[in-house]
Amino acid sequence: MLYSFAERTKAMLSSPLHFMKARSARDSFISFAEELPAEELFPLSPLEAAAAAVISKSPAALQYGEPQGYLPLREWLCRDFKQMKKTEVDAKQILLTTGSQQAMDLLVRVYVEPGDHVLVEQPTSPGFLQILNMQGAVVVPVEGDREGIRPENLLKQMERTRPKLLLVSPNFTNPTGILWSLERRKEVLEICKARGVLIVEDNSYGDLHFGGIGMKEFYSKYPSLFTLDEAGKGGQVLYIGSFSKTVVPALRTGWAAGHQAMIDMMVLAKQLADWQSSHFNQCLLHELLESSPFNIYEHIRMLNREYETRLKLMTELLKRPAWKNISYDVPEGGMFVWLKLPDALDSLALLKCSMEKGAAFLPGSLCYSNEGGSGYIRMNFTHPGRDELLLGMNLIGEAISEFTARS
Amino acid sequence: MLYSFAERTKAMLSSPLHFMKARSARDSFISFAEELPAEELFPLSPLEAAAAAVISKSPAALQYGEPQGYLPLREWLCRDFKQMKKTEVDAKQILLTTGSQQAMDLLVRVYVEPGDHVLVEQPTSPGFLQILNMQGAVVVPVEGDREGIRPENLLKQMERTRPKLLLVSPNFTNPTGILWSLERRKEVLEICKARGVLIVEDNSYGDLHFGGIGMKEFYSKYPSLFTLDEAGKGGQVLYIGSFSKTVVPALRTGWAAGHQAMIDMMVLAKQLADWQSSHFNQCLLHELLESSPFNIYEHIRMLNREYETRLKLMTELLKRPAWKNISYDVPEGGMFVWLKLPDALDSLALLKCSMEKGAAFLPGSLCYSNEGGSGYIRMNFTHPGRDELLLGMNLIGEAISEFTARS
Repeated sequence: MLYSFAERTKAMLSSPLHFMKARSARDSFISFAEELPAEELFPLSPLEAAAAAVISKSPAALQYGEPQGYLPLREWLCRDFKQMKKTEVDAKQILLTTGSQQAMDLLVRVYVEPGDHVLVEQPTSPGFLQILNMQGAVVVPVEGDREGIRPENLLKQMERTRPKLLLVSPNFTNPTGILWSLERRKEVLEICKARGVLIVEDNSYGDLHFGGIGMKEFYSKYPSLFTLDEAGKGGQVLYIGSFSKTVVPALRTGWAAGHQAMIDMMVLAKQLADWQSSHFNQCLLHELLESSPFNIYEHIRMLNREYETRLKLMTELLKRPAWKNISYDVPEGGMFVWLKLPDALDSLALLKCSMEKGAAFLPGSLCYSNEGGSGYIRMNFTHPGRDELLLGMNLIGEAISEFTARS
Repeated sequence: MLYSFAERTKAMLSSPLHFMKARSARDSFISFAEELPAEELFPLSPLEAAAAAVISKSPAALQYGEPQGYLPLREWLCRDFKQMKKTEVDAKQILLTTGSQQAMDLLVRVYVEPGDHVLVEQPTSPGFLQILNMQGAVVVPVEGDREGIRPENLLKQMERTRPKLLLVSPNFTNPTGILWSLERRKEVLEICKARGVLIVEDNSYGDLHFGGIGMKEFYSKYPSLFTLDEAGKGGQVLYIGSFSKTVVPALRTGWAAGHQAMIDMMVLAKQLADWQSSHFNQCLLHELLESSPFNIYEHIRMLNREYETRLKLMTELLKRPAWKNISYDVPEGGMFVWLKLPDALDSLALLKCSMEKGAAFLPGSLCYSNEGGSGYIRMNFTHPGRDELLLGMNLIGEAISEFTARS
């Protein structure tokens, strides 16, 4: 039969990501395009022990659970909020989701009508942009600088469009890696408060910070907008977090934290979308965090040391001749370096050439809600090991040199 | 701040299920309302061994996987289709989802516009009705008899509404437990083919059949519409299945199988919704099915024997005086008995009274797309153990007697 798909599918079909996926399936391919953590650093033995403990303890872990998510895991998150982020959250204010992507999707489903204006930090997460496009939102970019989005730009766009929400990630913005200043956080929160604009704050990368700074110290210097809004008691901020980058992605456990009225509504949408995320995975994570010798804060310190080393290697390689006209800021955390290509170079053309050689990156245009971004690329530094990093950077460097030689 | 939720949330808020959830959280509560399998029959030791094997084999099982789902598990499903259901399906025609609920949600997201007419078997699954309502579909009921929906009703509604899809579950329809005749299956498929109406066929319950009939024999007597449509090659049928009832629910693994053009589109929607379901859970299931001594077909035979025993006990109890004016058909499989209350009795009023005594069922109105169903209740017989079944049926029986005495 001939299918007549819903209008909204058109927004999905336009993404150039398909083409990349198909090509990168071959094994020898080196990709800097994805947001993958280093699997050689996964806590395998503690996970194995936790799985055994959970399954042998009670069959309840394998039964249907609560749509809102396993209560003891939500309570663990509350303790983490309190101890590490000086933030008092109630377990009722938390919804466990299938990763941060689903938290965003559920929020958009309950809060955004087709035609609503949504402000986004520009550039921003390609996955979140796709959600907004499919839901028919009018995405309005807000440009920023090294301290975060600029209040004057935010105000200008607010006057022009009367938006319903603003999407930001102040800790190591995907893709730029920017860490917002405290001042900027406060300003943006105040502006949104005064105008009743909901803020969605993605903190999927915040725990990955470098320079040997401790978790508590980091969050006391850089409190989330959620913390500044008194843990969502004001209702101004919906916070999104995830265990994908700090434990493992395949347990697909993220969360949304916010005002209870918002979380209650998202729980209803969650039931409808898939009933609930894996109760088994949530029990497993809880067992890992609470009962096994595994210590997540030590684990994250280890990850941060290792990721910082990988970042340093990448920036060393960026000093090589092939990359000489490329500019960037070295991020203080997160998973990406955001590179500005020389003027004449288009990231999609460069990507095609790199992929023929066997390496890929994320073209910047995917992070832009409008035509921009073609002069940028996003490079992930957490997944490739040392050898892959050397080889992959060489291959992309070759591609750049070919283009530079031509022009 | 004051939230202004999207219009579509209104459809979610109307469900009486909330009230039940809140009450049934107490431990001593006996519920016949949910679709829970018996957790004392879960294959715990094989699952524990499979989890250990998967984690120790490679960290790849804990990394991000494919949005479409772990290929070896999709290939296992293809073999199951071939061996048990005489149906040739390619792994590209299968998408792994977070349970059957998500398969339905994704289909509706890519295929149904607000205002589209969708035909549903009446009564039908409350979870699926909620998806349709939230997406703004106009739900059109099609009544049936003991052999399935009636072709003349289907034709009448098709002429009246020009629908986009028809939602059915021919194997032990939720909630009625009806098993469609082969004749009816063929008639309904032909009618939809002639008019270009997509069929969504939920087979979440088909494997749970009683009377000692083998799996192959069952599916050869009762082929799915998907099989009759040559495994979706015609594109007329999207098939939905799940491991929730046959292995365990908490791995949250279901699937959609259909024409590749439809599955490709649903994969895009899947990425947007949550990137992918748990790759770890999919690897774990595959390990359980392929490499461990566990045999799923033996396991299902055991479940069916046990569930048939529980059903018999329930029907024995239904012969007691309190239930005497209640009528029902004994299902040949599935998880539910669908009971017609005496004329004067309203299921919601009875539910309130039962819940005060400590037992619950699903009121029939939740399975109706219109005002109907208030004279019916759905009782799950797979979850309560013998003692719970005795006690719970007694409590509900008491509630019925009180009402009957009054009228």
